Amino acid sequence: MADTRNLSLNTATVREQWSLAECIDGCVRHGIPGIAPWRDKLAELGAERAERMIREAGLRVTGLCRGGMFPVANSKDRQAVVEDNRRAVDEALEIGAECLVLVVGGLPEGSKDIAGAREQVRDGIATLLEYSRPRAMPLAIEPLHPMYAADRACINTMAQANDLCDELGAGLGIAVDIYHVWWDPNLQREILRAGRQRLLAFHVCDWLVPTRDLLTDRGMMGDGVIDIPLIRSWVESAGYDGACEVEIFSSRDWWTRDPDEVLDVMKTRMEKAV
Amino acid sequence: MADTRNLSLNTATVREQWSLAECIDGCVRHGIPGIAPWRDKLAELGAERAERMIREAGLRVTGLCRGGMFPVANSKDRQAVVEDNRRAVDEALEIGAECLVLVVGGLPEGSKDIAGAREQVRDGIATLLEYSRPRAMPLAIEPLHPMYAADRACINTMAQANDLCDELGAGLGIAVDIYHVWWDPNLQREILRAGRQRLLAFHVCDWLVPTRDLLTDRGMMGDGVIDIPLIRSWVESAGYDGACEVEIFSSRDWWTRDPDEVLDVMKTRMEKAV
Repeated sequence: MADTRNLSLNTATVREQWSLAECIDGCVRHGIPGIAPWRDKLAELGAERAERMIREAGLRVTGLCRGGMFPVANSKDRQAVVEDNRRAVDEALEIGAECLVLVVGGLPEGSKDIAGAREQVRDGIATLLEYSRPRAMPLAIEPLHPMYAADRACINTMAQANDLCDELGAGLGIAVDIYHVWWDPNLQREILRAGRQRLLAFHVCDWLVPTRDLLTDRGMMGDGVIDIPLIRSWVESAGYDGACEVEIFSSRDWWTRDPDEVLDVMKTRMEKAV
Repeated sequence: MADTRNLSLNTATVREQWSLAECIDGCVRHGIPGIAPWRDKLAELGAERAERMIREAGLRVTGLCRGGMFPVANSKDRQAVVEDNRRAVDEALEIGAECLVLVVGGLPEGSKDIAGAREQVRDGIATLLEYSRPRAMPLAIEPLHPMYAADRACINTMAQANDLCDELGAGLGIAVDIYHVWWDPNLQREILRAGRQRLLAFHVCDWLVPTRDLLTDRGMMGDGVIDIPLIRSWVESAGYDGACEVEIFSSRDWWTRDPDEVLDVMKTRMEKAV
């Protein structure tokens, strides 16, 4: 059983209801000690103002979502990606985020070359590390579920993420989101392989049966089929003692509810189902 | 570029429009030399009558879909599964199928134990092999996409299927459906590992972007992002010279069209996009 002292609210969980300012306020009211904003929410408020509000609220920032989207069809787009990712690092630094989460991107428009996309991801991260490493902002590769391989992320397993960490070295780690990796027969092995140093974030929600939408039908912890305590035990065995971040995309359920109810349920489930 | 001499129609592709008798007739009219029925279609006609019609039509039966669904919650259900799978082997023998395709099953009702489900799959296949092996009916494990891990098949990669073949021995092989495995970074390696003897079937369709439904939004070859000729080249390099079976679940497109049009497009795409 987990407790709420390491809980963090990813703003995606209430993105349809609350602004970042409301999320910060909600965390304080509900005694949730961490927050992980998406950049669109951060842009609404501005990083400087957000940093001040988060600091005054006494919250930790368990991650900024997201950098990445490396594979592109041409060199002009590549330069835009480089610049946008540097801005993401700057924003993560400005709000004191513990890491910048990378959703690495899928196939460029019109491409069927997934091996090539994976090479672009490797090269893109290598380039970004030249910027992030001297500024001490850790980059966290988030392996996404294989159902997103074409359009969101072609890094789909912990093994791929670990291989990239092996190759690219310091300043790079992994964000483990159980929604994406729960099915992987090598999950325990690859979590242990990652170890304390690489495990930069731990995201929870649940896999619903049936899942009615590829993007926005994730469940609250305990409502699906993932053995979350088991995976949490593996992550903790590997030395992870960071936050447990709740990130739920749910157009037919949690995004339609009173966000104060969502945060209440999150806390209860953190104790009962994580 | 592939040609149509190895083409096979999986009846799922036109399941909303045609009976098995109409599928057989359609294959003959369109010069498609192979067919792979699902058991519900076979039941409509009866295996004996189906066998006669298929034989008279001069078609090869590239597989029977499907056995499997091994993980269960109790021993009564387990016995029913054993019996149903034996019937599936009998039916496959009766119609002269080249293999019985196994969709192995996901989590039993109420379970979150995916490792346990995978053990039940191993044990279930081992038991079925005692029946299928002396009757010389090859069993083909079909690894399904990880998005089906909970409710359809907990064998989600070629590596898992190869491991099971290593463990369980003769009479067991693999049905490679590119829809399920195209994203796998180890795909080429595991296809070569499987080799000619284990590669029992090759199913094609395409992954659409966006994919609007987890179950019934597959694309016609060429309409999606899978590099089908590349994967076909790997399968052929491994020694596979069997059929190329078209299996498309498509509630919003191909199931709504005139099935004669579907078969025409299948043939064209076999030459252009496979």
